[in-house]
Amino acid sequence: MTRIPFDEMKSTIQLAFTLAGMPEDKAAICARIHAESSRDGVYSHGLNRVERFVDYIGRGWVDVHAAPTLDKSLGAMEVYNGNLGAGITNAIFAMDRATELAAQHGLGLVSLNNTTHWMRGGSYGWQAAEKGFIAMCWTNTESCMPAWGATSTGIGNNPFIMAIPRKEGHVVLDMAMSQYSYGKLQVTRLKNEKLPYPGGFDAEGNLTDDPGAIEESRRILPMGYWKGSGFAVMLDLLSSLLSGGKTTAAVDRLGYGSCGSCCQVFIAIDPLQVSNQAFVDQSLQETIEQLRNSTPVNENGEIHYPGERSLRTREENMALGIPVDDGVWKTVRTLAGLVC
Amino acid sequence: MTRIPFDEMKSTIQLAFTLAGMPEDKAAICARIHAESSRDGVYSHGLNRVERFVDYIGRGWVDVHAAPTLDKSLGAMEVYNGNLGAGITNAIFAMDRATELAAQHGLGLVSLNNTTHWMRGGSYGWQAAEKGFIAMCWTNTESCMPAWGATSTGIGNNPFIMAIPRKEGHVVLDMAMSQYSYGKLQVTRLKNEKLPYPGGFDAEGNLTDDPGAIEESRRILPMGYWKGSGFAVMLDLLSSLLSGGKTTAAVDRLGYGSCGSCCQVFIAIDPLQVSNQAFVDQSLQETIEQLRNSTPVNENGEIHYPGERSLRTREENMALGIPVDDGVWKTVRTLAGLVC
Repeated sequence: MTRIPFDEMKSTIQLAFTLAGMPEDKAAICARIHAESSRDGVYSHGLNRVERFVDYIGRGWVDVHAAPTLDKSLGAMEVYNGNLGAGITNAIFAMDRATELAAQHGLGLVSLNNTTHWMRGGSYGWQAAEKGFIAMCWTNTESCMPAWGATSTGIGNNPFIMAIPRKEGHVVLDMAMSQYSYGKLQVTRLKNEKLPYPGGFDAEGNLTDDPGAIEESRRILPMGYWKGSGFAVMLDLLSSLLSGGKTTAAVDRLGYGSCGSCCQVFIAIDPLQVSNQAFVDQSLQETIEQLRNSTPVNENGEIHYPGERSLRTREENMALGIPVDDGVWKTVRTLAGLVC
Repeated sequence: MTRIPFDEMKSTIQLAFTLAGMPEDKAAICARIHAESSRDGVYSHGLNRVERFVDYIGRGWVDVHAAPTLDKSLGAMEVYNGNLGAGITNAIFAMDRATELAAQHGLGLVSLNNTTHWMRGGSYGWQAAEKGFIAMCWTNTESCMPAWGATSTGIGNNPFIMAIPRKEGHVVLDMAMSQYSYGKLQVTRLKNEKLPYPGGFDAEGNLTDDPGAIEESRRILPMGYWKGSGFAVMLDLLSSLLSGGKTTAAVDRLGYGSCGSCCQVFIAIDPLQVSNQAFVDQSLQETIEQLRNSTPVNENGEIHYPGERSLRTREENMALGIPVDDGVWKTVRTLAGLVC
């Protein structure tokens, strides 16, 4: 396995984005987020996603020059048109604005309509936590999962993120609505392994842990069966209704690829307006201690808080370099003009 | 199976609460919510929960005379002390206040610390939707589920609710963090049936659909395995940090029964400040149509939107009466002074 230093990965991606026509400042931000996603172990939306993003720019599905414009101001809540700009810069803007509103009103909500794929949703949770804010955010997507009770694709795999700032490492949940991603199915199949738990239905409608059978049937499993299915529907409707933007059904009709003209919601709250640092520290500490004091399933097993493993992967990848697929790395270097 | 008319159930519960020392107005509200929960098919937190609530009043774990008092006002956000008052009246107050803040600021958030069990969380989603507001709310609880990777109980089964007003029937998700409730395990075991899907681990640590084996091991399964476990931790921390209230770990230490001195968060947003009724109707319609147009797993199968089945159960139970367990009904009638 090849490992690439963070700075080299970031600068290579930045070159690729600049060559694709992105202004320098936006290319730097997007490259950082892609590289950070790979650094934290979210390989599917980091380096591996660069080629598709460049392709979307070429098709006109992402406008590299666009920035959000204000549609409506409602006090603690603001609605912006993302103008099909880069999902990453749009989302960073929106979360940042939500924290500003929160500083003013106790909490702030910013929604984006007509935006594009934000890549790793967790990025914006970490962003808010880094600034000292509690955050929630979510996006809708094109339909890519069957609703519970259906065999055909009808709902989005809408990720949902919650983040809490913490000195020793932020607590961040970044959760898609499917039990496993298609990326995980592929990786598991290529290793000739089974999934740890059933992840979908095979062509005969049986629950299965065989990743290849699920890739064929496209009947990927919502997390918690009917629960993840219903949650996905709610996140889609709330994205649309809070932003005046497109539902999953409308994103499907437009057909601008993955998440083209989707909509997103960003909520920020300042915990130190509610209580004080000592209280926040105490709540975090006693909750994490209660997890760690649980009896583990496996001897010497550890029970992690949300975000803990991302942080460990981050430390490892910063020390050793970020693991890459050689083919993907070559493709991105080619897009960056570094390979003839 | 005995079926009891809604009005008779409500008035009987009201008598029981009044005899337990509750003021007339609070008893009427609490009785309505319990009866509505049973009416909508949430039997576990309706009539079946009356005896335990009366017991908690007797123990001093619920103060039937208390009402919320303002701890802090932060613009669009307000924090209240629930003063160990009845969870139902506290929650109704909080959601109502959140809708008032939303009318003023675009969105409103009200949190409650030191409150008590709110019974069916969905009640407050329906309440906001009935008033025309989009809502989210959640509560923490005492620990009653093992975290992912643990065999011992360490996290709450914190319910999470999202609601959207809709003329033809509100869209409401009311979702606990376990795949199945203990009530569902018991009912399934008593029928000598298996769960439709695995719902926990047996004593040997194997995933099982045998409800009795899970009741024995107490290793109930978080929905979506690690996802529901992480989500439960986040909801607990957010409940505490947004209200200045007790975490699950602190609720455990206090030991005031189920949810004694827990904390809750209520968010409301007015969709008609963001867009207009035609847009809202269109988003809801195209999303529900996309669900209904999916290919069902079973011939003639239906794909439901969240809340649809509650509404059907409601209609059936209003027409035929609400099904009750004869023993439970007799107990509540006894508490109401109607049986010697």
